[in-house]
Amino acid sequence: MDAARSRQGSLTKPPGSLGVLEEVSVRLAGIAGACPPPRPQRAVVAVFAADHGVVASGVTPWPQEVTTAMVENFRAGGAAVNVLAREAGADVVVVDIGVASDVKEDEVVWARKVRPGTADLSAGPAMTRAEAAAAVGTGIRVADDLVRRGYDVLATGDMGIGNTTASACLIAHLTGRPAAGITGRGTGIDDVMLAHKTAVVAAAVARVPAGADPLDVLAEVGGLEHAGLAGLVLGAAAHRVPVVLDGVIAGAAALVAQALAPAAVDHCFAGHRSVEPGHATALATLGLRPLVDLDLRLGEGSGAVLALPLVRSASAVLRDMATFDSAGIPT
Amino acid sequence: MDAARSRQGSLTKPPGSLGVLEEVSVRLAGIAGACPPPRPQRAVVAVFAADHGVVASGVTPWPQEVTTAMVENFRAGGAAVNVLAREAGADVVVVDIGVASDVKEDEVVWARKVRPGTADLSAGPAMTRAEAAAAVGTGIRVADDLVRRGYDVLATGDMGIGNTTASACLIAHLTGRPAAGITGRGTGIDDVMLAHKTAVVAAAVARVPAGADPLDVLAEVGGLEHAGLAGLVLGAAAHRVPVVLDGVIAGAAALVAQALAPAAVDHCFAGHRSVEPGHATALATLGLRPLVDLDLRLGEGSGAVLALPLVRSASAVLRDMATFDSAGIPT
Repeated sequence: MDAARSRQGSLTKPPGSLGVLEEVSVRLAGIAGACPPPRPQRAVVAVFAADHGVVASGVTPWPQEVTTAMVENFRAGGAAVNVLAREAGADVVVVDIGVASDVKEDEVVWARKVRPGTADLSAGPAMTRAEAAAAVGTGIRVADDLVRRGYDVLATGDMGIGNTTASACLIAHLTGRPAAGITGRGTGIDDVMLAHKTAVVAAAVARVPAGADPLDVLAEVGGLEHAGLAGLVLGAAAHRVPVVLDGVIAGAAALVAQALAPAAVDHCFAGHRSVEPGHATALATLGLRPLVDLDLRLGEGSGAVLALPLVRSASAVLRDMATFDSAGIPT
Repeated sequence: MDAARSRQGSLTKPPGSLGVLEEVSVRLAGIAGACPPPRPQRAVVAVFAADHGVVASGVTPWPQEVTTAMVENFRAGGAAVNVLAREAGADVVVVDIGVASDVKEDEVVWARKVRPGTADLSAGPAMTRAEAAAAVGTGIRVADDLVRRGYDVLATGDMGIGNTTASACLIAHLTGRPAAGITGRGTGIDDVMLAHKTAVVAAAVARVPAGADPLDVLAEVGGLEHAGLAGLVLGAAAHRVPVVLDGVIAGAAALVAQALAPAAVDHCFAGHRSVEPGHATALATLGLRPLVDLDLRLGEGSGAVLALPLVRSASAVLRDMATFDSAGIPT
């Protein structure tokens, strides 16, 4: 990273004038252990899909069946993340880590179900500790598989009706902040439902015992996609491959990864800042600055793939720009 | 635009969940007069280069020769804007509208010099009204030429040592705000030089007579690249081609275009928000929200080309996403 900082200073521009892009380029060099770093060329967004028992307690207006329907929409290529990934030159892989219904496997949709949806976290633990550990392990192996297929930058995606509730629980517990400042409207709920959702989050977080480790926390109040995404971050970090995080679900998962292995976050970039209030809190604790800030609240990986061109551009600046010496420019 | 708003509401995502991208897509439809709008595919960044007599009064540490050296760096493809444009799939054209030295013409660098740099705006008018009008006309013709060559989205760029001083003058006058809140550090100056630069801006703006029209203002305190860029915006608007604005220089130029023809701004997107303080003021008056906000202060068009993938993505969403009906998803 020192070599990358020094090279940034020699490029034909005033020092610091490319702002956040310069820091991104330095971090890419640190992740790769090389200056200039390799171009993050072959990109994939891994959309972890799972269902949430807490939907039964009335935290969202969307029926649980939408999760399955959206998995089929991803398969057919018609969802927002498909369109945005094509624009960014990224492939889409959907990981069924816990969809409630049966989902067909093919090249796009990978069958990695740990269990068919979580239990209702408003009534008790969302899953067992063994299931949480299995889902983290699944995420690590998905990262392995993707890197082995030649992908050199991973973007996170997620689909799961009810998953902003589990995200709020994880963020509230892992940052020590009260539920009221963390819980948000997800894809869009009214004030009455938001008050109920906040109470559900507060009660669930209060149930997590003091001294619970990250797997205990996942088991009590998390989601299968959060566990899988935490594993994806750990697996990518082990391969020194950068991960571009999407919104609040990814932020919650990255907090879990950070609790398991703090250095893993060094391999992450925050693709964007969601309007979901817990996301800004998560990013502050992660120490990550979002690259895109356009009031998105869709999930699916949309904000992560939108940030891919910015990450690639940061890399290209460090690799391809002329230096003052090479261009013969007076300084 | 109504058709575009209606189509956004039918796509397989919660309404509004793509935030600012949805508004960008609706505005693209309005610019093109078609829903879905055509993809902004063939992009070019037009870098207007000019020198500034005010450099003699000590408002920047960079020597004026850097303008010419950077034009050669653009020609050779080694500057930041070249690297970022390649990433965004955009061509680079440099328009010498007023570089002080002789500049060779070729396919990349277009010779359109109106005069070899402005006079020192701290001592008197930067140029004549006829020269300001000629430079605006040059910008309009550059837009014509680019559209005729098949470009369907234009990004603005600029190069000119001293041009943040002229930008501050234009923004202060056209928004009616005091120089102290508008004048910034440009590519990087210390407190002493900033105080001097602010005094230069305040004195020059005070000289602009009440009732001056936009060409008078350009002539008194503007730059040749500002005039050219204002013309580029007008020319693009006449062709219903979108323009992605770069930072504070483009913001100042767009204010001039707005003063000449208010509807021209409907064809503009703010590529990014510069750290230069006058830029936020200009964007507020233009009514534009920046797409990228990463503490850039380089100019050249860097922030505009970084935003191109976001503009294209917004267009793709409206054109390529499935609808709830087509995907058979319960709502």
